[in-house]
Amino acid sequence: MKLISGGICAAKGFKASGVHCGIRKNRTKKDLALIVSDVPASAAAVYTTNLVKGAPLLLNMRNLSDGKAQAVICNSGNANTCNANGIQIAKEMCKLVSEATGIPANDVVVASTGVIGQPLDITPIADGMAELTANLSYEGSNDAATAIMTTDTVSKEVAVEFEINGKVCRMGGIAKGSGMIHPNMATMLVFITTDCAIAPDMLQKALSGDIKNTFNMVSVDGDTSTNDMVTVLANGMAGNEVITEENQDFTVFMKALNTLTVNLCRMIAGDGEGATKLLECVVTGADDEETAKICAKSVICSSLLKAAMFGADANWGRVLCAIGYSGASVDVTKIDVSFKSNKGIITVCQNGAGVPFSEEKAKEILLEKEIDILISVGEGEFSATAWGCDLTYDYVKINGDYRT
Amino acid sequence: MKLISGGICAAKGFKASGVHCGIRKNRTKKDLALIVSDVPASAAAVYTTNLVKGAPLLLNMRNLSDGKAQAVICNSGNANTCNANGIQIAKEMCKLVSEATGIPANDVVVASTGVIGQPLDITPIADGMAELTANLSYEGSNDAATAIMTTDTVSKEVAVEFEINGKVCRMGGIAKGSGMIHPNMATMLVFITTDCAIAPDMLQKALSGDIKNTFNMVSVDGDTSTNDMVTVLANGMAGNEVITEENQDFTVFMKALNTLTVNLCRMIAGDGEGATKLLECVVTGADDEETAKICAKSVICSSLLKAAMFGADANWGRVLCAIGYSGASVDVTKIDVSFKSNKGIITVCQNGAGVPFSEEKAKEILLEKEIDILISVGEGEFSATAWGCDLTYDYVKINGDYRT
Repeated sequence: MKLISGGICAAKGFKASGVHCGIRKNRTKKDLALIVSDVPASAAAVYTTNLVKGAPLLLNMRNLSDGKAQAVICNSGNANTCNANGIQIAKEMCKLVSEATGIPANDVVVASTGVIGQPLDITPIADGMAELTANLSYEGSNDAATAIMTTDTVSKEVAVEFEINGKVCRMGGIAKGSGMIHPNMATMLVFITTDCAIAPDMLQKALSGDIKNTFNMVSVDGDTSTNDMVTVLANGMAGNEVITEENQDFTVFMKALNTLTVNLCRMIAGDGEGATKLLECVVTGADDEETAKICAKSVICSSLLKAAMFGADANWGRVLCAIGYSGASVDVTKIDVSFKSNKGIITVCQNGAGVPFSEEKAKEILLEKEIDILISVGEGEFSATAWGCDLTYDYVKINGDYRT
Repeated sequence: MKLISGGICAAKGFKASGVHCGIRKNRTKKDLALIVSDVPASAAAVYTTNLVKGAPLLLNMRNLSDGKAQAVICNSGNANTCNANGIQIAKEMCKLVSEATGIPANDVVVASTGVIGQPLDITPIADGMAELTANLSYEGSNDAATAIMTTDTVSKEVAVEFEINGKVCRMGGIAKGSGMIHPNMATMLVFITTDCAIAPDMLQKALSGDIKNTFNMVSVDGDTSTNDMVTVLANGMAGNEVITEENQDFTVFMKALNTLTVNLCRMIAGDGEGATKLLECVVTGADDEETAKICAKSVICSSLLKAAMFGADANWGRVLCAIGYSGASVDVTKIDVSFKSNKGIITVCQNGAGVPFSEEKAKEILLEKEIDILISVGEGEFSATAWGCDLTYDYVKINGDYRT
């Protein structure tokens, strides 16, 4: 299992491209991405739990019901959600890909991200298709990763290489995140490709299982988007025996998927809107997994704690407070809290009460870009990890006037 | 039912005072408040639902079990929570009041607000008692209201006059709020006094019933404090027949209490940490009350919507989004959204989709200091109101370095 370069084009047989077609006014910002597999692929997806679901998601639920897909089209700049003709536009996007590539329209996954509630004009997308398909390339991952960005400040790509039954397999992913990210949704937009051969139902099982501990444990601002989705296309070109059951190969596949998604989670949280710090909250000692998860998520979601981390303030009372209102059943007199970064580790609370610590040392630790919040809630054996970011002036600035 | 001046001293027989005793370093900021009734009073209280409860609250739960109290002492600057000897310090605070006033220690309500996890030194409180009791006055409401402030920018007082069976009754309240305020807790600190005669169990019933639609519907930042409490002291000096059952008098009493608490809710939300705007979200048309409440709270808690309101941006998609992830069971294709202020009203969404509107007019409406977000979710008859505030740079600033 090793990290490699190449993003979504690391796996055999996947081309990608990204162009500026004109949905965005800013001509330097790409706004349309395409991913194409050389051959039909197994496909799986998970979607936002928001009752308000973007039109593209509603269409995908239909198109992916056969567990097959061969392409992904995604625009940024407009979410194609809460408008009158969203489904029709989403269908037209799939049809345009079909006309340009010969792939059946119902084998195209469609996604949109951006402002909610404004009609999406198909014209720039239609006009941009020629360039989009002409640019398709086995080195196009970063173009696609760039084209799906909204308020993201960096493109997010990762790839991993692993072996199944002597065959080298690769898996890559791109993500757009930044704001409106909260546990318990499918998550932000993530597109994953792999050349590993796996049956659609096993692919869905792998994805649905993985997100519980990865994308569902990320929070930027507590808001859950209407358009979040994670899809995986597995085209089988690595030549391994198709994974059709929960055997050892499946375990290796799950491990690869998890390596990929944890990396994407950290990238998404660290690039949260306005974020200056990546926060990783690890809760151990819980009596069950759910308790550990509830505690970790509550801490990572606390506006007060997030603001304290921005200020590099070791205000651990807010950690206890967040656990206290989380709804988790824990004995607060058994809670220990430490802060950790590249500069060291410092314990600030033991058995639910403050312990003397060096404010100077705490400041030094908390001024780093990646902070671990380590919490022990008792003597149980269950643990959980959640990822988030600090709350900053820039979060307010970005979201105070997003549409204009 | 009319609003009057006088705060917690509006009702007969209540004195109050507030001094700087030295818990805070800043000598111009009062940090210790006292409220005393001339005679023993019926008492009721509701407390935070946070598992981590401040030491003062734990003591009050014991002391108020007999439904009686005669005084309230409250310090700001230190929450007396998550430290080794909190209960002991809380007891000593009650004992100091007892020694200075002759009121039994277990008839003293005690409260603390400020930083969590630091030992509270009894010395300045003991040293300040002489001045605190010497300053007790029937015009002391604002001194007490000022002394309980933390990051509040204005003191919060309100009083109301009503008639029960021909007797004029008065009720007054002071509050400290500002940050760490979230639905479903007892709430921030609120002290209410009345000269109305009411039995302890009916007083508790009135308070517990009222907060469900008032303090539990306020959110500033989604964080629930460890020290929140609302108490009411009713000393009976108005001379009305004691309210002992749910009769017409009780209805009038509930109405008075609600008038008082709604006013305090608006003050607390409008003075949320860093807030520039008071937001009132009214949800109508729901099939049941719970659905209306869930929708209203989810909208008022959305960081994205709060940031949009700060920017006077009519980004109604975020309203729909917040309803969508709230967990409420509503038909999103039936949702209407309007924004309203002193400058007028504008409808931005009908039947779940955007309608054309003047951005200029929307901006004019949203630039006001008090914004109503009006949402209809269907044809049902239930409604709910929630109060909150915008999310601003100053929220981050205030909480990025609260302890120093």
